[in-house]
Amino acid sequence: MLLVHKYGGSSVGTIERIKNIAKKLARLKEEGNDLVVVVSAMGDTTDELIDLAKKISNRPSPRELDALMSTGEQISGALMAMALEDVGVPAVSLTGWQAGIYTDENAGRARIRSVDPSRIKEELKKGKVVVVAGFQGICDQNDITTLGRGGSDTTAVALGIALGVEKTEIFTDVKGVYTADPRIVKNAKKLDVISYEEMLELASQGARVMHNRAVELGWIYNMKIEVKSSFEDEPGTIIQEVSEMEPVSRVRGIAHKKDIAKITLKHVLDKPGIAHRIFKPLGDAGINVDDIIQNASESGYTDISFTIPIDDVDKALELLENVKRELDIREVSCNKKVGKVSIVGVGIQSTPGIAAKMFGLLGEAGINIDMISTSEIKIGCIINEDDVEKAVNVLHDGFGLGEE
Amino acid sequence: MLLVHKYGGSSVGTIERIKNIAKKLARLKEEGNDLVVVVSAMGDTTDELIDLAKKISNRPSPRELDALMSTGEQISGALMAMALEDVGVPAVSLTGWQAGIYTDENAGRARIRSVDPSRIKEELKKGKVVVVAGFQGICDQNDITTLGRGGSDTTAVALGIALGVEKTEIFTDVKGVYTADPRIVKNAKKLDVISYEEMLELASQGARVMHNRAVELGWIYNMKIEVKSSFEDEPGTIIQEVSEMEPVSRVRGIAHKKDIAKITLKHVLDKPGIAHRIFKPLGDAGINVDDIIQNASESGYTDISFTIPIDDVDKALELLENVKRELDIREVSCNKKVGKVSIVGVGIQSTPGIAAKMFGLLGEAGINIDMISTSEIKIGCIINEDDVEKAVNVLHDGFGLGEE
Repeated sequence: MLLVHKYGGSSVGTIERIKNIAKKLARLKEEGNDLVVVVSAMGDTTDELIDLAKKISNRPSPRELDALMSTGEQISGALMAMALEDVGVPAVSLTGWQAGIYTDENAGRARIRSVDPSRIKEELKKGKVVVVAGFQGICDQNDITTLGRGGSDTTAVALGIALGVEKTEIFTDVKGVYTADPRIVKNAKKLDVISYEEMLELASQGARVMHNRAVELGWIYNMKIEVKSSFEDEPGTIIQEVSEMEPVSRVRGIAHKKDIAKITLKHVLDKPGIAHRIFKPLGDAGINVDDIIQNASESGYTDISFTIPIDDVDKALELLENVKRELDIREVSCNKKVGKVSIVGVGIQSTPGIAAKMFGLLGEAGINIDMISTSEIKIGCIINEDDVEKAVNVLHDGFGLGEE
Repeated sequence: MLLVHKYGGSSVGTIERIKNIAKKLARLKEEGNDLVVVVSAMGDTTDELIDLAKKISNRPSPRELDALMSTGEQISGALMAMALEDVGVPAVSLTGWQAGIYTDENAGRARIRSVDPSRIKEELKKGKVVVVAGFQGICDQNDITTLGRGGSDTTAVALGIALGVEKTEIFTDVKGVYTADPRIVKNAKKLDVISYEEMLELASQGARVMHNRAVELGWIYNMKIEVKSSFEDEPGTIIQEVSEMEPVSRVRGIAHKKDIAKITLKHVLDKPGIAHRIFKPLGDAGINVDDIIQNASESGYTDISFTIPIDDVDKALELLENVKRELDIREVSCNKKVGKVSIVGVGIQSTPGIAAKMFGLLGEAGINIDMISTSEIKIGCIINEDDVEKAVNVLHDGFGLGEE
């Protein structure tokens, strides 16, 4: 059987770990499987490379950052191939462009346009384990691009789809997807199965579990994704199309985020087209605006609040300076001390009483709700950053999600 | 004017140095020059990558080593481009394959087959400084190859030729080519001009000054090469076609080597074809055999000695084990404690008295000569490794090469 595995940065963080994975892969190969193995950069390599760049320039160009960062996965890929060869398994490492990962030109956040797996298939036919450098591709200009943080997951799922496997396996440093972040909630429970949609909403665990874009890609192509531990040999959580076997309208998990900031625009003229003029420059700059709240208009003016990733704050405030001048907005303020907690589950928004219960639980715990946002499968509250861990626990207990 | 520069590992060894070079390049750009800049990996990066590989495997495959090592120059190239952009100079970094450096498939020691400079020209036309990752190329299989140690010099000269510049400038941590290694001989003198041939024989300074293959390439295409300091703004040494302006038959410099080993094969059957059977496997393995000495045959048997780079000893001894069995050679021994000292100058071999003077100077200093080898422009002696520095000084003084 053809298997597509992905190993994250901590899974290949040391020489010892790379060797252990190679031994495991050797066994799978011996059992008659073909293997395509996507690797992230070792441990903190990507951060170290970014630090180097920042020492050179405050604003390194995305094109050069991509050329720089893509080396991290090229290194771990070559080392993994060497480790395989060292235990007698024929192997070959391929960079993104060698593996046929074609992307758009959006450096630093490139999206995969197509995958040409012919080189991979050729190497598999020669009996080789194919190790692919994750997180990277090549655009029409023949420039190296990267897919954004966690992009190796996307590489793996894209290859799984292009190669037609039944599921793509993502090996990481957690055992699967939990009802809440197990670092915060002691009795958080591992889920056996979860829908793509729910997984996306549980993105608070994202950085450690799965890259969102990979889940979306899996969803579109209906590619099953199993998230499991690199270090233990047991089943993980399978992300797949929602099915009848799970009761709907139940809270499945508690998501949270801390690395966000709330930006508030005060006294904005309330007329058609204004929101577009505010959010278009942010969108053009690739800033992902999350919850947007617009208060009721008073005398033709309104206040608008929204949240963005904390890393994008400087860029956003710079862009909003122009918007402020052009639209005569009275004040642009920013609060970096906010967090978000959400309950996630298919159908919960339309189920009476669930939202009220959530607000009640938070209120009883003395946690003030700053903003509320909902989607079909999620109810989220923006709260004080310091209250996030308490809120997650209160909701996890309140909705009875813990291990019995 | 179009300039082709190359900066070695120590020249780009720190962030500060990269920034300084960028400032210098910015001035040259401002003066109206176009620039192609070849960079080596920062400082010890290549060695660190090799160390990583060795922790994974005792015998990492050359193909994967190349994939690994080529990242070093990709990193320094991207950083140099960022540094240029940071001082307001449009720049772009290109890997070997992006720069159109096509090589054969001999991983780790690939030779450049052709250069397609179209991407470079396109970027120059856009007004950009083009930074090229040295030391690497791509072969017909679309695999990344490296050109061997010091290959960035070869990249620079090859690009100089392909782009039709008048000379290629190699910036390094020494001021030029000296009459002897200035670390060993205090009053060694910088040469203004030297022939390709003499430069090749002065290869003892090679690791610090120039890669031999680059000199050969320059020679074949008659590309002038200037070796000069990265840190000081003064003329270096120009390597070019020998000309009348220099008197011939004079010792121009003293070369030496320490990183060699002498291998001796005892009691070898002396018949036609034997030497081929001994040296072919070494050649096939890419081992560069230097001086070969065969003693007079006694009763149909002879002894053969030769020197090789010390790094190739293990591989050579392994290969010679087979040869020993097949050819019934009595003993294969190895002496790693040898060195070589040579006098270099066009015409010296055919000038009476020069060789005798050399042997006399060494003898007076109590230095024993183990083997002698000569070429048209060089007389070399294999001696005890510990005597090398003394020998270089004795010969440098004896032939009156020092600064007045």
